[in-house]
Amino acid sequence: MSNIDAVLKSIDTNLDASVERLFDLLRIESISTDPAYNSECKKAAEVLVSDLASIGFDAKLHETPGHPMVVAHHDGPENAPHVLFYGHYDVQPVDPLELWDEPPFEPAIKEMPDGSKQITGRGTSDDKGQLMTFVEACRAWKSETGGLPVKVTIFFEGEEESGSPSLIPFLEENKELLKADFALVCDTGMWDRETPAISTALRGLLGEEIIIQAASRDLHSGMYGSAAANPIRILTRILSGLHDDDGSCTLPGFYDGVPETPDDIIKMWPGLGFSEEEFLGDVELSIPAGEKGRSLLEQVWARPTCEFNGIVGGYIGEGFKTVIPAIASAKVSFRLVGTQDPDAIRVALHDYVQNALPADCSVTFKDHSASPAVHLGYDMPEMKKAATALTEEWGKETALTGMGGSIPVVGHFQDILEIESLLVGFAQDDDRIHSPNEKYELKSFHKGARSWARIMQALAE
Amino acid sequence: MSNIDAVLKSIDTNLDASVERLFDLLRIESISTDPAYNSECKKAAEVLVSDLASIGFDAKLHETPGHPMVVAHHDGPENAPHVLFYGHYDVQPVDPLELWDEPPFEPAIKEMPDGSKQITGRGTSDDKGQLMTFVEACRAWKSETGGLPVKVTIFFEGEEESGSPSLIPFLEENKELLKADFALVCDTGMWDRETPAISTALRGLLGEEIIIQAASRDLHSGMYGSAAANPIRILTRILSGLHDDDGSCTLPGFYDGVPETPDDIIKMWPGLGFSEEEFLGDVELSIPAGEKGRSLLEQVWARPTCEFNGIVGGYIGEGFKTVIPAIASAKVSFRLVGTQDPDAIRVALHDYVQNALPADCSVTFKDHSASPAVHLGYDMPEMKKAATALTEEWGKETALTGMGGSIPVVGHFQDILEIESLLVGFAQDDDRIHSPNEKYELKSFHKGARSWARIMQALAE
Repeated sequence: MSNIDAVLKSIDTNLDASVERLFDLLRIESISTDPAYNSECKKAAEVLVSDLASIGFDAKLHETPGHPMVVAHHDGPENAPHVLFYGHYDVQPVDPLELWDEPPFEPAIKEMPDGSKQITGRGTSDDKGQLMTFVEACRAWKSETGGLPVKVTIFFEGEEESGSPSLIPFLEENKELLKADFALVCDTGMWDRETPAISTALRGLLGEEIIIQAASRDLHSGMYGSAAANPIRILTRILSGLHDDDGSCTLPGFYDGVPETPDDIIKMWPGLGFSEEEFLGDVELSIPAGEKGRSLLEQVWARPTCEFNGIVGGYIGEGFKTVIPAIASAKVSFRLVGTQDPDAIRVALHDYVQNALPADCSVTFKDHSASPAVHLGYDMPEMKKAATALTEEWGKETALTGMGGSIPVVGHFQDILEIESLLVGFAQDDDRIHSPNEKYELKSFHKGARSWARIMQALAE
Repeated sequence: MSNIDAVLKSIDTNLDASVERLFDLLRIESISTDPAYNSECKKAAEVLVSDLASIGFDAKLHETPGHPMVVAHHDGPENAPHVLFYGHYDVQPVDPLELWDEPPFEPAIKEMPDGSKQITGRGTSDDKGQLMTFVEACRAWKSETGGLPVKVTIFFEGEEESGSPSLIPFLEENKELLKADFALVCDTGMWDRETPAISTALRGLLGEEIIIQAASRDLHSGMYGSAAANPIRILTRILSGLHDDDGSCTLPGFYDGVPETPDDIIKMWPGLGFSEEEFLGDVELSIPAGEKGRSLLEQVWARPTCEFNGIVGGYIGEGFKTVIPAIASAKVSFRLVGTQDPDAIRVALHDYVQNALPADCSVTFKDHSASPAVHLGYDMPEMKKAATALTEEWGKETALTGMGGSIPVVGHFQDILEIESLLVGFAQDDDRIHSPNEKYELKSFHKGARSWARIMQALAE
């Protein structure tokens, strides 16, 4: 039996134990955006350090002003490439809790009517389940061969879901520690249930919180109605002005740097068998809500967006309260493509809001993440090797795809560590990441580990 | 010493005990809009029944499908008029709790730099402090003379802050029990710190909750951004369309039945010494936000309003979450004047929202209160008697004023019990009703009780 066959067999044989290790990680409530969960974040980092050390990695927890980083090294054969595997151990908040069918931090395996099995819970798909596919692949290589086919540095952060404030300083201060030939990033999805994918483009992300203050205190609408500025009215007017009737963003300069999608790419998309009806029908919608005159796939893969992720003001409890609130606020985010400049768009947004404000009201901005879009080369030799390995595992041609989401770390790896990234992941469109009832297919977890085992082998050749 | 002098002296002498009784009532957390406080509402009703019985009233608690009603009778001299005194023992919610300087349900007396004293806490001004002015006046009359100068029925409800769902059925089923010559309603304010007022007009109120549903679950904006309808975007567009650039409401037919304010009334207003700058400056605003071309006083007293009292959707916690929510909702209210028809306006609102909705989204409405405006006669003989009594107590001519708020019960008394109401109250503009740090001037409480003692005497003459 060749090395790789033994490694794959080991992954198959030890699947139950692998799932148990994943469950241990999933039970930790590592919600990075909420300071109430700081100690849980640290615990997740510690568990990973200890697990990696048990496989033979030189693993350390690195404190930051925010949540700790995990960095672990394992040597490989002379002349073998050196990969930097990235993942994140933090997860999204879980509210509204009442919409979860199972408690989010009590992972379980759920058997579906079609016989497939889902691992349920927060972080199963984004990103604990995904990062453990690589760890389990390493474990199997070690147990069967005593080593790894490539040199590996593993790098886990704990702030991906909260704007990664410590990431850039950490990369800048630890270039030597994180030195590698290229990165492997496991935070993306499959093309469909059967077809593996490598993402070749990532949208950028700009997040901004807008807090409008009108009166110095909440007012009674019977006494002050009409007379006093209502911050909800101001905010809704501001937000509704951000899109025109065709669904385009109205900020001056917003489309600077947005490339038109090449015709040959647009012509290729229908062949991918993507169904707008299914994609939207899956969440009980039917009408693409983006820019008029562009296909849904173009809207999602190639066009920038302006979305409202949260809004709150006034009385939001049961019943009614005739209050004019002092404050109303919204969280707004933009997905960026091409060479759109997040900093310039932030300035345009600030200017627009300031100009729309009555003179006796004020606004406070809270800046969240700002990362430009990233385009990876279709012709990296490592990409071809990984694509072949994935095709061998899944029995389907690997799809090279654009991607709607944003993984800012990929841009930072380019800029600071000066390495490209290979984006391979096993999530499904219906994994409900960031939503209640997040899940990860047991098949994704199992064949994901097998895929990484094969990719490591392929990269070594 | 005449009867009235002895009664006034008794009120002065027993002020501390009166305040203690008010504190007992204020400590009860009778928030009617939130079912978690149902038992507190009942407790407030029971305390009032027991207190009124202790003065010699035939007092009873009447269960309803919502919170109980309190009705108490006390006889008076033959041929004396029969008054129905109305107040409400329920209070507004207290959030945001962190903005209160003192706990809302631990009443206290706070001495101000100018030497005045404030009773602090939720319900002090709206309406527990106000209703107790009348109870204390009755107590003093009884203790000094053994009786009351008029026949009195006291009627307290516990749902005024939550749309009074049980009020109309209760009035219809208990016309005989509540029979009186006219009503006294103590839920209004003074003209200024020194000048008593009787309100002669009340705006109506229409409350509506709009809940927009887009996708069947929360979505990740990286995957579904642009493609999936965002209910916050739909809702903000709908709300921002409800006012035009001049601050007028755009609903078709909204201004049907809105009378132009007579010139002689508009000419009278400047003489009242009302300062727009002070009224708005008090809450750190400076620009009237209502219909262009109308004075602030006209906006507040004579014009209808459309206000947004609450909005919520998506992620509203600390930090950022790039979610496209499934649901967003807003609470909208309209103050009505003249003969505006709340039911017709509700229909116009429903139609407007339905028409503004993408075909794959849906809306749910929750109807809250709907009451038309009320106009009381300037020439009721009881109004003149009460105005004279108030002038004697305060040493200033009583102002006959319009009023921005809405007291739906006054319309129901007209329609169902067929009696007019005399609206007398001692609240101040800065009492922060419905807001954190609600207060009631100790002077309002003390001289309010004295005022009612005098008014009862005047009505008997």
